[in-house]
Amino acid sequence: MIAEIIAAGSEMLTPFRQDTNSLYLTEGLNDLGVTVAFKTIVGDSLDHLTEAARNALQRADIVIFSGGLGPTEDDLTREAAAAALGLTLHPDPAIIAALYKRFAERRIAITPNNAKQADILDGAMLLENKNGTAPGQFLVTTYRGKKRYVALLPGPPKELKPLFDEQVKPRLAALLPTRFLAKRLLRMALIPESQVDARTSPIYKLYEDVETTILAGSGEIQLHFQCVAATLAQAQARVDELAERIEREMGDDIFSSHGESLDEVILLMLGMRHQTLATAESCTGGMLAQRLTAIPNSSRAFIGGAVTYSASMKALFCNVPPELIESQGAVSEPVARAMAEGIQTTTGASYGIGITGLAGPGGGSQGTDEGKPVGLVYIGITDATGPEPVTQIKQLQLMGDRERIRWWATQHALELFRRQLL
Amino acid sequence: MIAEIIAAGSEMLTPFRQDTNSLYLTEGLNDLGVTVAFKTIVGDSLDHLTEAARNALQRADIVIFSGGLGPTEDDLTREAAAAALGLTLHPDPAIIAALYKRFAERRIAITPNNAKQADILDGAMLLENKNGTAPGQFLVTTYRGKKRYVALLPGPPKELKPLFDEQVKPRLAALLPTRFLAKRLLRMALIPESQVDARTSPIYKLYEDVETTILAGSGEIQLHFQCVAATLAQAQARVDELAERIEREMGDDIFSSHGESLDEVILLMLGMRHQTLATAESCTGGMLAQRLTAIPNSSRAFIGGAVTYSASMKALFCNVPPELIESQGAVSEPVARAMAEGIQTTTGASYGIGITGLAGPGGGSQGTDEGKPVGLVYIGITDATGPEPVTQIKQLQLMGDRERIRWWATQHALELFRRQLL
Repeated sequence: MIAEIIAAGSEMLTPFRQDTNSLYLTEGLNDLGVTVAFKTIVGDSLDHLTEAARNALQRADIVIFSGGLGPTEDDLTREAAAAALGLTLHPDPAIIAALYKRFAERRIAITPNNAKQADILDGAMLLENKNGTAPGQFLVTTYRGKKRYVALLPGPPKELKPLFDEQVKPRLAALLPTRFLAKRLLRMALIPESQVDARTSPIYKLYEDVETTILAGSGEIQLHFQCVAATLAQAQARVDELAERIEREMGDDIFSSHGESLDEVILLMLGMRHQTLATAESCTGGMLAQRLTAIPNSSRAFIGGAVTYSASMKALFCNVPPELIESQGAVSEPVARAMAEGIQTTTGASYGIGITGLAGPGGGSQGTDEGKPVGLVYIGITDATGPEPVTQIKQLQLMGDRERIRWWATQHALELFRRQLL
Repeated sequence: MIAEIIAAGSEMLTPFRQDTNSLYLTEGLNDLGVTVAFKTIVGDSLDHLTEAARNALQRADIVIFSGGLGPTEDDLTREAAAAALGLTLHPDPAIIAALYKRFAERRIAITPNNAKQADILDGAMLLENKNGTAPGQFLVTTYRGKKRYVALLPGPPKELKPLFDEQVKPRLAALLPTRFLAKRLLRMALIPESQVDARTSPIYKLYEDVETTILAGSGEIQLHFQCVAATLAQAQARVDELAERIEREMGDDIFSSHGESLDEVILLMLGMRHQTLATAESCTGGMLAQRLTAIPNSSRAFIGGAVTYSASMKALFCNVPPELIESQGAVSEPVARAMAEGIQTTTGASYGIGITGLAGPGGGSQGTDEGKPVGLVYIGITDATGPEPVTQIKQLQLMGDRERIRWWATQHALELFRRQLL
């Protein structure tokens, strides 16, 4: 079974906007055992949309339209689907009544345009839209003698998602062969993809019934497993068995065995031990704190931090001696150490992390930092949970632009800290 | 003239990866007066890719392929384009020689697969790829009697972008009618789109030769103008005249008259006055500092800040009296005021910004914050440039999830600060 997703809307053919609904729809379709084979993005032209619909009906078993169901002249998905399928549209009296009611409640006069939202394809089921005016439609039909499943969904994600999940997915599930799917996600940081593949492929290749996907990017490797079996328990058992064998092979390299993010894992580990963390950031400028505080309830473990973007701030918040910066440069091992130790001492947290580096675009230009290359980063981590505080330092030479260097510096700091917590 | 972009790669038909090259290509094509009418995303199947190529050649004047030019079995764009166009592929000796040289330099044996990267379509020009092994191709041809411009580009953005800009765009520009395009971008923050449209549409509608696009999202409104005229000077004059009339109408609501970001504008304003800023963040957890420090050379004006995620940190870094938090709650006007004043005084910056709020998902649950709603945010801004420090406070009730509330809180803080700097 293959599917095609057609996203309708001229704004998605500009440099400014992108179809994102299809990612969500794809995940849901994959759950049903359906592969998305084509995605087409097309503007608000009846000819173009009708042609896209014809191509899709020709080549895909399931065709899902997103967008173009509103009340304006540019909303042409109903008309295009009707033209491609050779069906007529008829107004649904219940929808018309509901529209009148909705407008009356808000004391707005209904315009004739709005009525077109009640037009439904002959033979289609209406999909009630609780979050907007345009209902969706679902149709089982034939196109040139072949069986086709067609869904029309509104474009706004907060309307499309519940409509798809609650009304399209269950209908498709009932019509397609029953299938039991289990999934699992393992995550790792900062390991080369080739190394992960070399170590894990001898294992996952033994599990031909489990589909393994390796995704790499932004300093993270994800291993996605999914399995379809005769029962859900059987599918889950296969996925879990493979995941556990991979976990034994990769050991501590795996930071998440059920999909949690690196930030979440660290906060969980700290929370379980009733320990706390404080940060002092120079080149990352608050990105590390921002990542940690993006997680709900992070305040239990993350107590705060300092963004020390100048020598005087490093002295003020972390007690870094100005002479140290003068003699060693702000981007140096001793300063990273002093930042980590200083923020730990000042705040009384269990752990302190200090980051200093050159994020670019220019390299070091002042005093003792002169000539240091863009991408040079020092990370210090102070552990004050033992009898004596201990600080470890890591020096990195990162590549890329300012944004990439900053991100990778936080990723390295978090991963280094996680390994220390183990 | 219409174009279609075909993105080849099965990974873009998963829930995890998306085509983004087409946004870049669309901008470049629009510059040439070409409208992108269709985008097709297709997997690594020769049949599917050939069918997509045929559809595109049938309906679009310009067809641009991205991806599928590498050395693996899954790289099938060359073969599909050849099949759709009814052309044969022939190996280019110069490319083969270059591949051998590249591999020899790295002392790696060349595999037969690699040789397919040298296959070019009959009649196509080779586009040298300085950032990878697979060259691009450009072809002017006919398909069913109609003139067609076809480009094959490698998928990695750092290979595709320079190839498109340096080798495809100039060739298309030379083949298409000459055209002089001028653009301009005005940006505003936190104004309802409907209000911007009501105030500006009577003006921009007078300029029928200028295309106006309003984009809204994440607390920002952008007005994009572009004009094509007989000369570049004429196009620029029309765009500038309209932009200046809109600027007179919207006045200080416009933060950027040439496309700069809100963060950049604030850092520029501070830099020109030789003034500095420090921040104290609770609910935004470093996001404000992170946004400002994302801009190169921000250290000239942004000296640093504190992330005060607990009462003791607010006392430590901003001298907020613990009694004040106990009596008023951490999320309160007096605490926002004390944070702004405290961080300004502690750091000696010209200005201090303090943010405290409830980002959710839970509302206030402790002490005097109990019962305060999610989304309640207080922003304090202290101006210490006059004879006496002055602090202004803004109370907000923001909507949405944690990430949205945090973003909008920083957006409000920056916009409030910009207006104060005016």
